Amino acid sequence: MSTISETDVKTRMRALDLIKENFKRLLDELDKSGKLHLVFPKRTLSNTIYDQKSKILLLGPDIQYRSFTDINEAKKFTQTILMASIIYKALRNNEYPTIRDLFYRGKHTISYTSIDGKKVSENSWDDQRESDSVIRDLEVFLNILREDLLILSKEKGKVVGNLIIKSGDDTIDLSKMGHGAYAIEPTPDLIDFIDVDAEYVLVVEKDAVFQQLHRYGFWKKNKVVLVTSAGQPDRATRRFVRRLSEEFKLPVYILCDSDPYGFYIYSVFKAGSITLSYESERLATPTAKFIGVTLTDIFGTEIFKEILRDPQIKNTLEEIAKDVLKLKSKEPYLSIEERRNFVIKAKLRDIERAVELVGYRVAEACIGSPEYRSKIKRKEGVSGYPWFLTPEWIRELCIFFYTTSKLEIEAITGKGLRFLADIYIPRKIENEDWID
Amino acid sequence: MSTISETDVKTRMRALDLIKENFKRLLDELDKSGKLHLVFPKRTLSNTIYDQKSKILLLGPDIQYRSFTDINEAKKFTQTILMASIIYKALRNNEYPTIRDLFYRGKHTISYTSIDGKKVSENSWDDQRESDSVIRDLEVFLNILREDLLILSKEKGKVVGNLIIKSGDDTIDLSKMGHGAYAIEPTPDLIDFIDVDAEYVLVVEKDAVFQQLHRYGFWKKNKVVLVTSAGQPDRATRRFVRRLSEEFKLPVYILCDSDPYGFYIYSVFKAGSITLSYESERLATPTAKFIGVTLTDIFGTEIFKEILRDPQIKNTLEEIAKDVLKLKSKEPYLSIEERRNFVIKAKLRDIERAVELVGYRVAEACIGSPEYRSKIKRKEGVSGYPWFLTPEWIRELCIFFYTTSKLEIEAITGKGLRFLADIYIPRKIENEDWID
Repeated sequence: MSTISETDVKTRMRALDLIKENFKRLLDELDKSGKLHLVFPKRTLSNTIYDQKSKILLLGPDIQYRSFTDINEAKKFTQTILMASIIYKALRNNEYPTIRDLFYRGKHTISYTSIDGKKVSENSWDDQRESDSVIRDLEVFLNILREDLLILSKEKGKVVGNLIIKSGDDTIDLSKMGHGAYAIEPTPDLIDFIDVDAEYVLVVEKDAVFQQLHRYGFWKKNKVVLVTSAGQPDRATRRFVRRLSEEFKLPVYILCDSDPYGFYIYSVFKAGSITLSYESERLATPTAKFIGVTLTDIFGTEIFKEILRDPQIKNTLEEIAKDVLKLKSKEPYLSIEERRNFVIKAKLRDIERAVELVGYRVAEACIGSPEYRSKIKRKEGVSGYPWFLTPEWIRELCIFFYTTSKLEIEAITGKGLRFLADIYIPRKIENEDWID
Repeated sequence: MSTISETDVKTRMRALDLIKENFKRLLDELDKSGKLHLVFPKRTLSNTIYDQKSKILLLGPDIQYRSFTDINEAKKFTQTILMASIIYKALRNNEYPTIRDLFYRGKHTISYTSIDGKKVSENSWDDQRESDSVIRDLEVFLNILREDLLILSKEKGKVVGNLIIKSGDDTIDLSKMGHGAYAIEPTPDLIDFIDVDAEYVLVVEKDAVFQQLHRYGFWKKNKVVLVTSAGQPDRATRRFVRRLSEEFKLPVYILCDSDPYGFYIYSVFKAGSITLSYESERLATPTAKFIGVTLTDIFGTEIFKEILRDPQIKNTLEEIAKDVLKLKSKEPYLSIEERRNFVIKAKLRDIERAVELVGYRVAEACIGSPEYRSKIKRKEGVSGYPWFLTPEWIRELCIFFYTTSKLEIEAITGKGLRFLADIYIPRKIENEDWID
């Protein structure tokens, strides 16, 4: 009996064929034109574009040529071929390498005598950044996710809910996980969704909050697929959520802390990450909503008017302030007493992180702390991510800078798990009180 | 239909009774003696003892008194009562708080006028370290693990294998997890082991290596319960492994990187952690073996003789050197070429961490890097952990200091997953080539 799943056997054959095909084409071209080069979309920051229509980060139209006979490109060319051959061998040998393994496997020193007679030693690559970058190039060149080449990675995502899947040779009922959960596989494209009975997907940033909601039966009561990313989401969790959103048209809500770290987690789920922009098309969930916690949840929306009383702030914000004032207003969920006990003072690095999200203009206009004001340094090219430059986010971030406050999900569970599970989340969804 | 498991309902009743009982006893004593105080084992470093017989860290005989009427103890006393009442309320309200929640729930400011007429404000606690410490006191006072009070936490541990468990209301077959895994619940004492068909437990430090071995079918071929702690093990993973070891007499092997961080992970599994020594009796697995990777795996054992050629080293090591020389010798698993590509230079903080494990004597005697030698600072009271002062560990650490080398598990998978799964691990176990 083979110990390896049918799914993996098939995936392996597909991947081998794909690599063979692509490199055969390379050789055919060499035969025809005498040229040996790789051609694929350029993976640079300047070729990363936020597509307003699909609302995700994508690669632009620039093309990368990597030629064997160009002295400036020969090393990179050779590295790419080396990596492709290591991956090919791993596939043939029934292996499941990680990117760390691939780094080790390719690491060696080449010694040779240069044209001018000197003895020279050079490493195939010196650190993992180099080999990782080559792996990304290969993903773009082959137009395939590394997971489909059976390159594995650690995986933090977990899920429970009325969801039956087939993974490997097993059919698994994710509503029968007891107090534990199903740890998502690192290759979520190989999952077959057999049956789903859910109203929406709730993604919780914090594993501990996931545990509480799970144990409380939140997903049973509300017909929810409950997922945790356990911090920054990894690729598999993002792909898993995206597939649920795409294949079953399930709404996706993200529950994070109200701080720039939480906002960024949402952003990665929704729009993609900049280094992996070439994969947003498969990993991002552009319909995902940030359900909370928000600073307006605890300060209400009136505070924004208070902020605007400062004429300088009003001037700097200009048009956007008007758009913000048109948003629905709301009452805070916490009393003043609770707010005082639950709110945490933002640190300088929180402020700096928030500046990256919305740019300097908002930060400089609103920042309430003289101590931090003097420390924020302008960096070239930081004008914020387009998807954070909406009235809803500007309002949140203005309150963040003005009060230098952040808030954890636990501030809501501090009022009771029932409050979080039976009032806060359902009411936010019912009132469409989220940020898109 | 209730959405909460039967197991939790019962656990909740038990916990409520226990708290009620213990605090009733306090009141009874107040009635009888007029004294209101808590009495429980002292949780201090000086009262933490390594028990040579059971091979775990334990609390010693010192007793902590905490009296309401002693001005030095009144605040701590009140904090303890406050925390007990918050936990009690949470249990009554069907909640599952985390230690972070408990911190938030108890956080408030008390304002009063002092005897000399001054207005005074004082916080119940200022940061989570204070409230966490009180939770630990309560665990010791009530003689119960916090998990049995249904205090939850994030949980990283995963498992697959021929193991059927009952968790909550579900029966789960951990050999049917597909390419995913079962994420262990944060309250592993509530699991019922229904059936186990395994030869041993293999705990892998790295989730990515766990994924590879799982996918390769390692646990099927070798009848293994495969666990990953995904880094430093949390309480639930430790308790889960301990229960497998205790209830089924399964050998437990720990597979970590060969660096002080990996050694420490092994140490926490085996002997317990110093801050949680009061729980080692339930969390530690004293029979666990460190299976690798070791520096002797790649340098062989001959190198120790080379180290001893330095008369100064020989003198400093004295008797222990003789014991080391009596150990079985072995050939390295890697060629010199492979070693060169796979070994990583240890950083200063690795050296410092290793000093904590075995003390200064070994470090100062063996350290091969003049750069680090000058930077190691003696700290009072650092003489190493008793369970690292064995000939086997001394040999490893001597080679570590001498070569300032560390090694990742990936160096072995670099030679191929088959090598790790079909040769390295089985051979190490067959030859009893582990460190106890």
